[in-house]
Amino acid sequence: MKRSQLIAEIKSKQSFLCVGLDTDLNKIPASLQKEKNPILAFNKAVIEATHDLCVAYKPNLAFYEAYGSKGLEALEATMDMIPENHFSIADAKRGDIGNTAQKYAEAYFKQMGFDSVTVAPYMGEDSVKPFLGYENKWVILLALTSNKGSSDFQLLHSSSGSYFFEEVINKSHEWADADQLMFVVGATQPEYLAQIRAIAPDNFLLVPGVGAQGGDLNAIATAGMNDDIGLLINSSRGIIYAGNEEADFQKGIRKAAEKVQLQMANLLQERGLV
Amino acid sequence: MKRSQLIAEIKSKQSFLCVGLDTDLNKIPASLQKEKNPILAFNKAVIEATHDLCVAYKPNLAFYEAYGSKGLEALEATMDMIPENHFSIADAKRGDIGNTAQKYAEAYFKQMGFDSVTVAPYMGEDSVKPFLGYENKWVILLALTSNKGSSDFQLLHSSSGSYFFEEVINKSHEWADADQLMFVVGATQPEYLAQIRAIAPDNFLLVPGVGAQGGDLNAIATAGMNDDIGLLINSSRGIIYAGNEEADFQKGIRKAAEKVQLQMANLLQERGLV
Repeated sequence: MKRSQLIAEIKSKQSFLCVGLDTDLNKIPASLQKEKNPILAFNKAVIEATHDLCVAYKPNLAFYEAYGSKGLEALEATMDMIPENHFSIADAKRGDIGNTAQKYAEAYFKQMGFDSVTVAPYMGEDSVKPFLGYENKWVILLALTSNKGSSDFQLLHSSSGSYFFEEVINKSHEWADADQLMFVVGATQPEYLAQIRAIAPDNFLLVPGVGAQGGDLNAIATAGMNDDIGLLINSSRGIIYAGNEEADFQKGIRKAAEKVQLQMANLLQERGLV
Repeated sequence: MKRSQLIAEIKSKQSFLCVGLDTDLNKIPASLQKEKNPILAFNKAVIEATHDLCVAYKPNLAFYEAYGSKGLEALEATMDMIPENHFSIADAKRGDIGNTAQKYAEAYFKQMGFDSVTVAPYMGEDSVKPFLGYENKWVILLALTSNKGSSDFQLLHSSSGSYFFEEVINKSHEWADADQLMFVVGATQPEYLAQIRAIAPDNFLLVPGVGAQGGDLNAIATAGMNDDIGLLINSSRGIIYAGNEEADFQKGIRKAAEKVQLQMANLLQERGLV
């Protein structure tokens, strides 16, 4: 997907919501457990309930690999169900030497047809570049993640006085521009978001760690939005497991997604972006 | 597998060779392309030709994911073929937040039965710890990798004057000891190997990037061996694609593995370790 198309989708839906398909067999409704492929049945239900409210879907590969080849089959079938106009993210956090990175790129872009893949920066340029060889396909590079352990290394200072995650962002500008490169920035770190926007003014930021609540959404928009919106906000558990009522779980999912979308519409309207 | 068992296997075979099963459909003999599952047929041939010469097998996940669910099926079947007394490494280089890392740990340790998994350190403690909750299962943490891009971030200096890869090693000692934690150290970086051995005296080091040639093997052993040997040296392409003669490709593979094993036996004998 092209950057301009993504921006147009966001404006049209008044939403920059990404729904994380972290589907866990232990957490899906009992009624679906009887299905031949419960993971797929659940993903279908989530997509039906949210597709007009979100612009992106992000399956995390771990949740599929945990079920081996059968899990990967479910992922492939899920990809077939995601509508064309949604931006799809393989949340894989891969990073390996050149010829291996090329294989991963084939897996996600050619074999499975994703628009983008999350990539870990630790191994440097030749671990990232193979993902950049596909037209209208994207790398979403881990910069500052939402977990507690992000402080272990990402927030170390380098000898030049920058945070390590800033070294990653600065270096990666040499590899690709904002038409192919986004960054992962955790919503739990809003204090750094403005700092990141300053050194990555044009790139989209994928922000995980926002729940259905969204009290943080305002702070994230203030610190992170640019003239092209520039944000994709992901919610996984906060939306897909919001349906507590067994019989009517799809309604719960839709309600949770709607709540976030409404907040997003307000934020976009306030800023005159739609 | 227990550390003591791994050491006993190395001594018994006079080999610390790991064979990398980076099986690429485009590179395997034409005769196997006719098989129902060419990847599996090739892996079977490699294992037959090398199992008494090596102590470990390391499939890189990318080479299987590139073929989607069918590739993962081939990986599962390969795992069934690897003999019990071989240390198996899922070369996955995963790293994700806690609940996701837990899913990856399930995938490799429970679903597929690997002894170990390679893990990327960028996301810190809670991305590594879930892999440490399994008895006799190992984390092999990326420290200094063998690729060119390793200099981009791993060789940056932190404000304390250490290399970034040293920060990773030092911090990780807080998470696990040498009974569950190894480090990846590229063979292309022998000048750093002694430095790493100084701050990780007891840990096994997994050293990729050694070809069938092995001129470097001596330098690696000198800089990296400890009293428990402490090295696993991986060769992938240098061994599995050594069989140029189509009809007799297994002989070529065995010859390449034998050459490395003989050098290893000499190194072990010279040092009185066997």
